[in-house]
Amino acid sequence: MRAVQVVGYHTKLQLTDVPEPEIQGPLDVIVRIGGAGVCRTDLHILEGQWAEKSGVALPYTIGHENAGWVHAVGDAVTNVQPGDKVILHPLMTCGLCRACRFGDDVHCENSRFPGIDTDGGYADYLRTTARSVVKIDDSLEPADVAALADAGLTAYHAAAKVARATRPGDVCVLIGAGGLGHIGIQVLKAISAATLVVIDRNPAAVELAVAIGADHGIVANGTQVDDVLELTGGKGAEAVVDFVGEGGATSEGVRMLRRAGNYYVVGYGEDLVVPTIDIISTEINFVGNLVGSYTDLQELMVLAAQGKVALHTTKYPLADFQQALDDLDAGKVRGRAILIP
Amino acid sequence: MRAVQVVGYHTKLQLTDVPEPEIQGPLDVIVRIGGAGVCRTDLHILEGQWAEKSGVALPYTIGHENAGWVHAVGDAVTNVQPGDKVILHPLMTCGLCRACRFGDDVHCENSRFPGIDTDGGYADYLRTTARSVVKIDDSLEPADVAALADAGLTAYHAAAKVARATRPGDVCVLIGAGGLGHIGIQVLKAISAATLVVIDRNPAAVELAVAIGADHGIVANGTQVDDVLELTGGKGAEAVVDFVGEGGATSEGVRMLRRAGNYYVVGYGEDLVVPTIDIISTEINFVGNLVGSYTDLQELMVLAAQGKVALHTTKYPLADFQQALDDLDAGKVRGRAILIP
Amino acid sequence: MRAVQVVGYHTKLQLTDVPEPEIQGPLDVIVRIGGAGVCRTDLHILEGQWAEKSGVALPYTIGHENAGWVHAVGDAVTNVQPGDKVILHPLMTCGLCRACRFGDDVHCENSRFPGIDTDGGYADYLRTTARSVVKIDDSLEPADVAALADAGLTAYHAAAKVARATRPGDVCVLIGAGGLGHIGIQVLKAISAATLVVIDRNPAAVELAVAIGADHGIVANGTQVDDVLELTGGKGAEAVVDFVGEGGATSEGVRMLRRAGNYYVVGYGEDLVVPTIDIISTEINFVGNLVGSYTDLQELMVLAAQGKVALHTTKYPLADFQQALDDLDAGKVRGRAILIP
Amino acid sequence: MRAVQVVGYHTKLQLTDVPEPEIQGPLDVIVRIGGAGVCRTDLHILEGQWAEKSGVALPYTIGHENAGWVHAVGDAVTNVQPGDKVILHPLMTCGLCRACRFGDDVHCENSRFPGIDTDGGYADYLRTTARSVVKIDDSLEPADVAALADAGLTAYHAAAKVARATRPGDVCVLIGAGGLGHIGIQVLKAISAATLVVIDRNPAAVELAVAIGADHGIVANGTQVDDVLELTGGKGAEAVVDFVGEGGATSEGVRMLRRAGNYYVVGYGEDLVVPTIDIISTEINFVGNLVGSYTDLQELMVLAAQGKVALHTTKYPLADFQQALDDLDAGKVRGRAILIP
Repeated sequence: MRAVQVVGYHTKLQLTDVPEPEIQGPLDVIVRIGGAGVCRTDLHILEGQWAEKSGVALPYTIGHENAGWVHAVGDAVTNVQPGDKVILHPLMTCGLCRACRFGDDVHCENSRFPGIDTDGGYADYLRTTARSVVKIDDSLEPADVAALADAGLTAYHAAAKVARATRPGDVCVLIGAGGLGHIGIQVLKAISAATLVVIDRNPAAVELAVAIGADHGIVANGTQVDDVLELTGGKGAEAVVDFVGEGGATSEGVRMLRRAGNYYVVGYGEDLVVPTIDIISTEINFVGNLVGSYTDLQELMVLAAQGKVALHTTKYPLADFQQALDDLDAGKVRGRAILIP
Repeated sequence: MRAVQVVGYHTKLQLTDVPEPEIQGPLDVIVRIGGAGVCRTDLHILEGQWAEKSGVALPYTIGHENAGWVHAVGDAVTNVQPGDKVILHPLMTCGLCRACRFGDDVHCENSRFPGIDTDGGYADYLRTTARSVVKIDDSLEPADVAALADAGLTAYHAAAKVARATRPGDVCVLIGAGGLGHIGIQVLKAISAATLVVIDRNPAAVELAVAIGADHGIVANGTQVDDVLELTGGKGAEAVVDFVGEGGATSEGVRMLRRAGNYYVVGYGEDLVVPTIDIISTEINFVGNLVGSYTDLQELMVLAAQGKVALHTTKYPLADFQQALDDLDAGKVRGRAILIP
Repeated sequence: MRAVQVVGYHTKLQLTDVPEPEIQGPLDVIVRIGGAGVCRTDLHILEGQWAEKSGVALPYTIGHENAGWVHAVGDAVTNVQPGDKVILHPLMTCGLCRACRFGDDVHCENSRFPGIDTDGGYADYLRTTARSVVKIDDSLEPADVAALADAGLTAYHAAAKVARATRPGDVCVLIGAGGLGHIGIQVLKAISAATLVVIDRNPAAVELAVAIGADHGIVANGTQVDDVLELTGGKGAEAVVDFVGEGGATSEGVRMLRRAGNYYVVGYGEDLVVPTIDIISTEINFVGNLVGSYTDLQELMVLAAQGKVALHTTKYPLADFQQALDDLDAGKVRGRAILIP
Repeated sequence: MRAVQVVGYHTKLQLTDVPEPEIQGPLDVIVRIGGAGVCRTDLHILEGQWAEKSGVALPYTIGHENAGWVHAVGDAVTNVQPGDKVILHPLMTCGLCRACRFGDDVHCENSRFPGIDTDGGYADYLRTTARSVVKIDDSLEPADVAALADAGLTAYHAAAKVARATRPGDVCVLIGAGGLGHIGIQVLKAISAATLVVIDRNPAAVELAVAIGADHGIVANGTQVDDVLELTGGKGAEAVVDFVGEGGATSEGVRMLRRAGNYYVVGYGEDLVVPTIDIISTEINFVGNLVGSYTDLQELMVLAAQGKVALHTTKYPLADFQQALDDLDAGKVRGRAILIP
């Protein structure tokens, strides 16, 4: 079958012919790829940023946002059968460690990450396990939801925490109206009645955010902290979700937070720097957010099937992977780029 | 009546004669002071550190850790009657704002703080309200519990959060085995089955911590992070409660934290500095902690009455306030200094 | 001022002239009534069903679903001022007992219930306290929201519990599509993504339920249990909210419940009868529901101001109270009857 | 190997020779039995009470409370290795259904129950899976903890729910001071500060309950409801855990419950019958309780290793199984009977 592989760092990906993956264990699942998201992380992989961390041996197949159809299953697989449409949780988890047994499988002590440290989805087929496949509704197409597998799942995970901690009338500020922010807005509209305030430097992104459900949009031009304080009667927001995490976002974001409020760190890059006296005197919390769990992905797929969460995508044939990467790098992709085998 | 007052900053406190407080409103309560804790904050007040923040007009009566007997009550007071032994919650709260209505009265939008911004308890009598008095068990004496009103309540509040988020087998590291740390240990032993690891630079404090219930004591000598990692199989602790918050405690403490763990900020002084990439990749949380609520104080008094939480005190007659402050400043007080009118 | 009073049981209400209420305590609030809901409970009061339970002395003014404008306030009132539009929480609570201090003011140990055990709102003015008045948005009119004060608040309270315990894809069955059911549907649509299945014997009520947001409507004709099981793949619903509680609703409702599901008892009349073996072998829970708290009412008013919850009302001048009661008794009122002074 | 099998209903168990179980799948684990608890359920199985429900084909090996040493493991097993001491969770779960993925594996849609519907532990060896084995501390012996696998785990599960819903000063009534009650008391003492009130008809059982930590013991002689009300100032208990569930326990127990209290149903037999008006007017809840999850069993084993939970056992050689059953039936076993292969 065809596979797009990393053959070296600082080198272009290469389309090559490799053997189809086969069932090796009773919980294995072979998925025929219907769509594979092209993510900025893929560019970083090629730059070698993940080389040491992942320890992956080259060549290997890239692609960590995958969806498709079940092609074959091992003997012990009971949750899917060949022909089922599925989206793949980004991690392959052990199911045996205490984190897995609690449902916090993202903190599995023995996980693998296809596309990062083992073969991923820029290919015709991918081998994963029954623990990573989530059936999707008949009304959804793999290529349309593939990009929800990682970025969308992260936004869902943070938004679900916000929903559990807020009530009608509470204000949630979302810093950053890019891909994650847009998913976050849609999820929060679907599962909470918090008042959503979206902040971004890009006026078009803010406009789109308001169009898909944000209650207030603020174009960041230096007065955004005051704008939030004014909107909240000087008290600040009960929740701030920071999808940016760099360029000064955190220090500004903390100033938007109300006493006893929660600051959700999603984007990253800079250091979080807060005087401990401020943390205790206002009793604020900082909440880390990684990708969501398997059950989070099930729930996100429910929202997608209900039409409550959608993602704009630009599709490319698998063979045009280089064009997709180039377009992404050049900022020319609207929504998310998806490779279609 | 006698009252010890702040008459100027960088000036000694002065014992003077002032009129007894009287009932002014239907919810007012006059308390005959049985004991008033002498706290390091009192030293800071005299240094003028709180002058601007509190905006208090001089002279006023100092003392914010108070307990005694109800002397008189307003018409609408239903929760106590004259003669009742009571401890005073440090704040006088409005009961009407949304925070108060949720039971988060520490975040009251209209609170007063006796001893800080209005007359406190270095005196024969104190006026407070029905919302601030907690009846204590007959077996307890006001002078013995007064110092639990603020420092103890803060430790209880943080410990109760830890208890709700941990399970048998989880490890809780307590950084700092001083007054708050000792209360924290006793509370956690009473309400949780977490394994308690206490760290302090002072070997005697660590020894005492183990004597009152800590499962492991570590004298901080440079290897404490590794010691915690070794105790936890390299994984770190599910909870770290930082009663220090300065001198590098936070950066060390964060390294002791397990994936998905919670870091409770109680002590303060330095900045918390954490790369956002670390916050998200391990999905850790930082939890601010202020003093506990009125209901927290009720619960702490239950533990005190059950003999599960005790505090060593050194008592001074009210007139010897200067000696008590001098002893505190010189590090000569064992446990907490208490003034007895 | 005018007041409609209970002068005897099994006797008609009587419009009479009584002195205007006056401020007596510093937390008192006098409200000029803008609308008072006419409730089936009012009919039951006249039948003497509440005589013993309330112990109220006759004559007294009836009416327990009230909204209006603040007319005068006591010295210590900080949360409203004259002219403010307000809705009244049905209870007057002490603010001092442990339940009040936790925000569970519905379980206040010293509460009063205007319209039931003290003067209510079928009148020009009503005296209440600062603890019972919730400011409403400028866009809302007292007469339009008055009926949310009790029935609506009960539905909100139960729906908020459901929202906290369900996730996207979970199914919530609502038994009964009357007034409470309609509020429940609107609230759940606003704050959760649960799939809503509404059951009622009345086809028109089911139709309306679907029109305002229910995902599935079932006309109860004997196959409703099987219908729910079919809709849920034979597994049953994660939540059943029973607004009926009589005529066999509970035994049917329990059969609709999934393993580990929650059954919310709101309506009442019959006994709940469930074999303990069924409770433990499927590990189901039964959740009691009384009226909501003060903070629940604040949140419901946010949803009302956002246009997410609305109530159909039929308005009558205060003097036409008898007509309103007669219409209610005859089943001729569309939505809720409201008296306008 | 030796195995004690059910060869027919209303017939004695039979010791026979069967082939040793072998590894069949990569997650299989063969355990050499160190102790198998003899439970009243085993008597019921022989009476045919489970025949239809389990659908098991005879003959099969009985015994559902098992602990021992890992003898062999499949290729994919990462959590234990041969030689490890383990206790067995009573269920073998799929790990793939949504309940399993949430950590609620007790509600697994595809579970098996060794000793009930497949071969159990009255034998030299047992085949289970990696998902069912919990490593125990070196200080514990399999025969000493085996009986915690089912009855003890149920008590832990309920007690942990109580601990999460109570605070210092809250009262928890435990109805029934038998095996489960004793475990419940020990667990609650270890993980909560609730005041424990134990009720039983048997004075010796009550005495033992107080000896192991109950704060109050009440011998049920007709005044127990009044006794609890008196102990709680007429208000009732925040929690009632009913380990009996028959003979009128539930109707009495509900009368001991405070407003907004929780009634935990653990024992079973009779119908729970409660007027819905009582459920809503006091807003009480009924909480079903099945056996605990895998993570619950891990936590119970932590408490056992810490010496906080212990069980009295009477040991019999495997060959004396009939004597053990006879003694159990005759009420002659002190604590739990354990078969030792």
